[in-house]
Amino acid sequence: MTYALAADPEYKNLGTATSHLSGRIISRFTHVHQNIEDLIKKVKLLRVLGQKTGTCFQRCVGFDGINATYSVTYEMDKKNGTSYFERFKKWLTYIQDENLMVVGAMTDPKGDRSKGPAGQSDPDQYLRIVERRKDGIIIQGAKLHMTGAVNSHEILIMPTTAMDETSKDYAVICAVPVDASGITMIFGRQANDSRRDNQEDIDVGKPSFGVVGGEAVIIFEDVFVPWERVFMDGETDFCGDIVYRFAAHHRANYGACKTGLMDVLTGAVCYLTQIQGTANGSHVKDKVTEMIHLSETLYSSSIACSAEGWPTSSGAFMVNTMLANVCKHNV
Amino acid sequence: MTYALAADPEYKNLGTATSHLSGRIISRFTHVHQNIEDLIKKVKLLRVLGQKTGTCFQRCVGFDGINATYSVTYEMDKKNGTSYFERFKKWLTYIQDENLMVVGAMTDPKGDRSKGPAGQSDPDQYLRIVERRKDGIIIQGAKLHMTGAVNSHEILIMPTTAMDETSKDYAVICAVPVDASGITMIFGRQANDSRRDNQEDIDVGKPSFGVVGGEAVIIFEDVFVPWERVFMDGETDFCGDIVYRFAAHHRANYGACKTGLMDVLTGAVCYLTQIQGTANGSHVKDKVTEMIHLSETLYSSSIACSAEGWPTSSGAFMVNTMLANVCKHNV
Amino acid sequence: MTYALAADPEYKNLGTATSHLSGRIISRFTHVHQNIEDLIKKVKLLRVLGQKTGTCFQRCVGFDGINATYSVTYEMDKKNGTSYFERFKKWLTYIQDENLMVVGAMTDPKGDRSKGPAGQSDPDQYLRIVERRKDGIIIQGAKLHMTGAVNSHEILIMPTTAMDETSKDYAVICAVPVDASGITMIFGRQANDSRRDNQEDIDVGKPSFGVVGGEAVIIFEDVFVPWERVFMDGETDFCGDIVYRFAAHHRANYGACKTGLMDVLTGAVCYLTQIQGTANGSHVKDKVTEMIHLSETLYSSSIACSAEGWPTSSGAFMVNTMLANVCKHNV
Amino acid sequence: MTYALAADPEYKNLGTATSHLSGRIISRFTHVHQNIEDLIKKVKLLRVLGQKTGTCFQRCVGFDGINATYSVTYEMDKKNGTSYFERFKKWLTYIQDENLMVVGAMTDPKGDRSKGPAGQSDPDQYLRIVERRKDGIIIQGAKLHMTGAVNSHEILIMPTTAMDETSKDYAVICAVPVDASGITMIFGRQANDSRRDNQEDIDVGKPSFGVVGGEAVIIFEDVFVPWERVFMDGETDFCGDIVYRFAAHHRANYGACKTGLMDVLTGAVCYLTQIQGTANGSHVKDKVTEMIHLSETLYSSSIACSAEGWPTSSGAFMVNTMLANVCKHNV
Repeated sequence: MTYALAADPEYKNLGTATSHLSGRIISRFTHVHQNIEDLIKKVKLLRVLGQKTGTCFQRCVGFDGINATYSVTYEMDKKNGTSYFERFKKWLTYIQDENLMVVGAMTDPKGDRSKGPAGQSDPDQYLRIVERRKDGIIIQGAKLHMTGAVNSHEILIMPTTAMDETSKDYAVICAVPVDASGITMIFGRQANDSRRDNQEDIDVGKPSFGVVGGEAVIIFEDVFVPWERVFMDGETDFCGDIVYRFAAHHRANYGACKTGLMDVLTGAVCYLTQIQGTANGSHVKDKVTEMIHLSETLYSSSIACSAEGWPTSSGAFMVNTMLANVCKHNV
Repeated sequence: MTYALAADPEYKNLGTATSHLSGRIISRFTHVHQNIEDLIKKVKLLRVLGQKTGTCFQRCVGFDGINATYSVTYEMDKKNGTSYFERFKKWLTYIQDENLMVVGAMTDPKGDRSKGPAGQSDPDQYLRIVERRKDGIIIQGAKLHMTGAVNSHEILIMPTTAMDETSKDYAVICAVPVDASGITMIFGRQANDSRRDNQEDIDVGKPSFGVVGGEAVIIFEDVFVPWERVFMDGETDFCGDIVYRFAAHHRANYGACKTGLMDVLTGAVCYLTQIQGTANGSHVKDKVTEMIHLSETLYSSSIACSAEGWPTSSGAFMVNTMLANVCKHNV
Repeated sequence: MTYALAADPEYKNLGTATSHLSGRIISRFTHVHQNIEDLIKKVKLLRVLGQKTGTCFQRCVGFDGINATYSVTYEMDKKNGTSYFERFKKWLTYIQDENLMVVGAMTDPKGDRSKGPAGQSDPDQYLRIVERRKDGIIIQGAKLHMTGAVNSHEILIMPTTAMDETSKDYAVICAVPVDASGITMIFGRQANDSRRDNQEDIDVGKPSFGVVGGEAVIIFEDVFVPWERVFMDGETDFCGDIVYRFAAHHRANYGACKTGLMDVLTGAVCYLTQIQGTANGSHVKDKVTEMIHLSETLYSSSIACSAEGWPTSSGAFMVNTMLANVCKHNV
Repeated sequence: MTYALAADPEYKNLGTATSHLSGRIISRFTHVHQNIEDLIKKVKLLRVLGQKTGTCFQRCVGFDGINATYSVTYEMDKKNGTSYFERFKKWLTYIQDENLMVVGAMTDPKGDRSKGPAGQSDPDQYLRIVERRKDGIIIQGAKLHMTGAVNSHEILIMPTTAMDETSKDYAVICAVPVDASGITMIFGRQANDSRRDNQEDIDVGKPSFGVVGGEAVIIFEDVFVPWERVFMDGETDFCGDIVYRFAAHHRANYGACKTGLMDVLTGAVCYLTQIQGTANGSHVKDKVTEMIHLSETLYSSSIACSAEGWPTSSGAFMVNTMLANVCKHNV
């Protein structure tokens, strides 16, 4: 549906954008927000998709990862004279032109949460660089809860938390195709999956648009990544930034996709009350009103953090972080 | 487990009672509350069972149905000179002596909720008497969401709502064995049931103590019930009472079985935080405290409505209805 | 402070606007919103004023009344060929040029809420036209809870609810100076007012900027209003619109002025915790975070209903009503 | 009213008790709970008083202080061979026989909350023993927020927090008459007190039963206390117990007096809705139901923590602490 909507004349305006890199029309899910209008269109796109699919449509994590990496690589280069930003723009142009689906991979297993990456008894509790070669790096570790991983094209790996000097090998941003050598995905079983697979004639989600959420554990065993796909290598002082920006963009989504889902649920509830003959009950009206109220409160925060967006030095627009956090907190 | 606990010396005091009918030691689940202490013991029994099973143990609906029917049949007889109370005591003694499990069957399909039983276009939306014979009655209809029905011995049928004069055929209380002729049960599928049935080596509940909830639709097609098992026949002015008393007893349970479950959940959460290394985080402590707070608030209402219990004219004790409603509302 | 801020170079951009009627710089509190930016600036202005005064600054009711009346008079004229809009623009230009403070007067005593204006046993429970003369109308009745009435220059009278054909005399919008003949104000006593008046040396608000809220009952006894100050006379079918539009604009304010107040309160609380030595307590941080969270949730709705604003046919911009209602509901 | 009710035949059963010390009929407010029934009667007494006065009736702090001191002095003596318990019983018999009102004095100013009593830069931030003489002790310090202090007969001083070895001089329980030499009370001004004092003809509470709350700061400057009125002197290891037991008894009151108040408020609201013609509005019914629900949830916890009460080794009954805390948390 994320592809279908881009081709639908009614939703084209939301589903597509003009690339600031190539000038070509691209899927909005591969776009870097250029202004407040882009931020607001993202919210409206996600709400429509929530309404159309009634489920998770898996594209926002990669979308937010692209936007966070864009401005952070720009700032790393400005500070350190590195060339991550150019590498990233090249990779991003490829993603835009090929219209690929990217899974943003941030969450590590993390082991003992009272210790950082370097303090774990098992060093692979956080994904890390185990070797630096002339042509690239070798990474090892795992990323958990990777929504939509199995049906994506590319994985955008990012660090999962702020880090200090002791964790240089864990400070890595890079991109790998899902079928790179050394990658294993463990697909999470889902509620009643065997029932669905037995093709019983009941409605259990919309498998034609992918499996609900579809979370996987991605295991990386000695995965090679060529330098042109490495966008951070040891810059621990920027780990906090990438997490913070990713999180802000991502939290802004909750008042978008979830309210789309709520629209479906609220409609279903209203329809049920008509079937039951309770639609005019004041207690029913109260509860439906409360559903709408909760939903629109969430939506307010998504719109507000977008309307109060601001330009980073790279030109990419960020949402207002405070209001994005409020949005997440209200879920 | 409801049978096992009665035989366990540690819990015997909760799991059993002395029948006021026969003087014999019986399962508390077949007992008629004789005083406030009985009401409080019921709460404590349900909490322990919640802790032991971590799921629904299916016995309280029948238990509450027995208690409601006991005092209401007494009052019907007092008013109308009928003999329902004697019939009911005879049946109850049989249940107590044979140590049988009873499913309380109250909820009808109800069709269009804006109309009563007699106003439905389909007369079978509420269970009803379709024929009165010399030796008994013939009933027809269905009862929904019957927890534990398939593994019970007896069904205690009660009306689902207050009724008026027009609904005399729907005002029926009676008992039938689960294998009576004309009864069909449609067992509700449960989340991931096929996974469990494939006997995968994972913990999906405690099937040795029965299936979680285990709800069934019970369909009654021309089921014959002899007069000695009929405890209400047309007394529409007592339908409100039976529902009201059943509901009061039943609402009092939510601070009992659910808090037992919450104890299991809270313990599991605490154990997880130790594994994760987050047990000392103030946000974690806050959330665990909130879990306990919610649980004990519920428990308070169950204890309070029992401590404020009162004797009906039959001698059976009722909980305080206001506080029982508060309990349910806090779930 | 509402006047002072307009003259302050730092806040001029918020405190003033360019009149679309005269092209002159005016107080924003007399401005008709011309675009989304105006709606957002209003929110930011109110928040700053809340922070500066720590109390109600009394100007928003008149401000919202002006904006509601503007678009509704335009639409009445379009439908009925009346000339209310021209009259209103003339009066508004006078207000803008003289920089006057307007109290928006909507709430009637209303008597028995189960009946409408025409059904009251006391016909003066809703303000009404008691006589129509060649040169104007005579009105009678009262308006309650009139914030800032005693220190305003003008009263903008509006109907308090949707009305039907039977209530033509109650469907009136008009403007009168506060010192018009026949007007009596009953000023509401305030908490500890005698203590403040005794000039005890304690901080009880900021009387130099007016008394907190300062609510009055305004009684109208045979008050004459010349035709050029009458902006609705009997158009009951527009009463709902004026209330609805006023309410939408007004509800949008709660995430503005109240969050300004909350900023003051939150700061005061933080300062107290430093004095007490509890600033680092996790329970204290949690509560302060919750204060900020509530405040910013409100603010989100004010920003969002502005960002989703829309142009009426008059050109004046309305907020998004759904999101403005959400804002009010979250207070 | 606390005295009047004890003399009222209708409420005598709640308002009085039989002293386990003297066998005489005494005010329940001077009674030591001997069983669960006493604990429940306390709850019911406080609720009735809340209904009758519609305000704070000032007696529960002393009541709870008496009960906490009773069992803790018993346990101190058992451990250390002291004779506080006998002293306390003598004083208590005097209080019971003379029917005196006792203010329980626990809360110290506490200064910097991040430090204990001995760590304060100002040693008088916690009340302490400044001299031990042959005939008694000299105390110094202050107690804050002392409800009903000015119209009490006696002050029962208790430590405000758990303490360690360094704070021996601060570990003191003792009783002094309110007019002891060296005591100064600073009476807190109350909202609109000057208005009430001007005897305006409006209803501002029920001054005939005392002033609402009536909080005072009590300052102790070199106050002499004879040994027979000293019930703790340096036993820091029991400070936690006295606070914990006092707090448990006190927290149990919130579902008692506050629900009495809520009964008055709920009735007033219902009466207002009848006057306004909104009594049948579903939104009004919902809100009134919610008021009752909150009130009865609180009441549940007070009843439950009493029904689950337990005997201390002194014979005095304690409420269940967990459920008493739940009660307070729900306020």
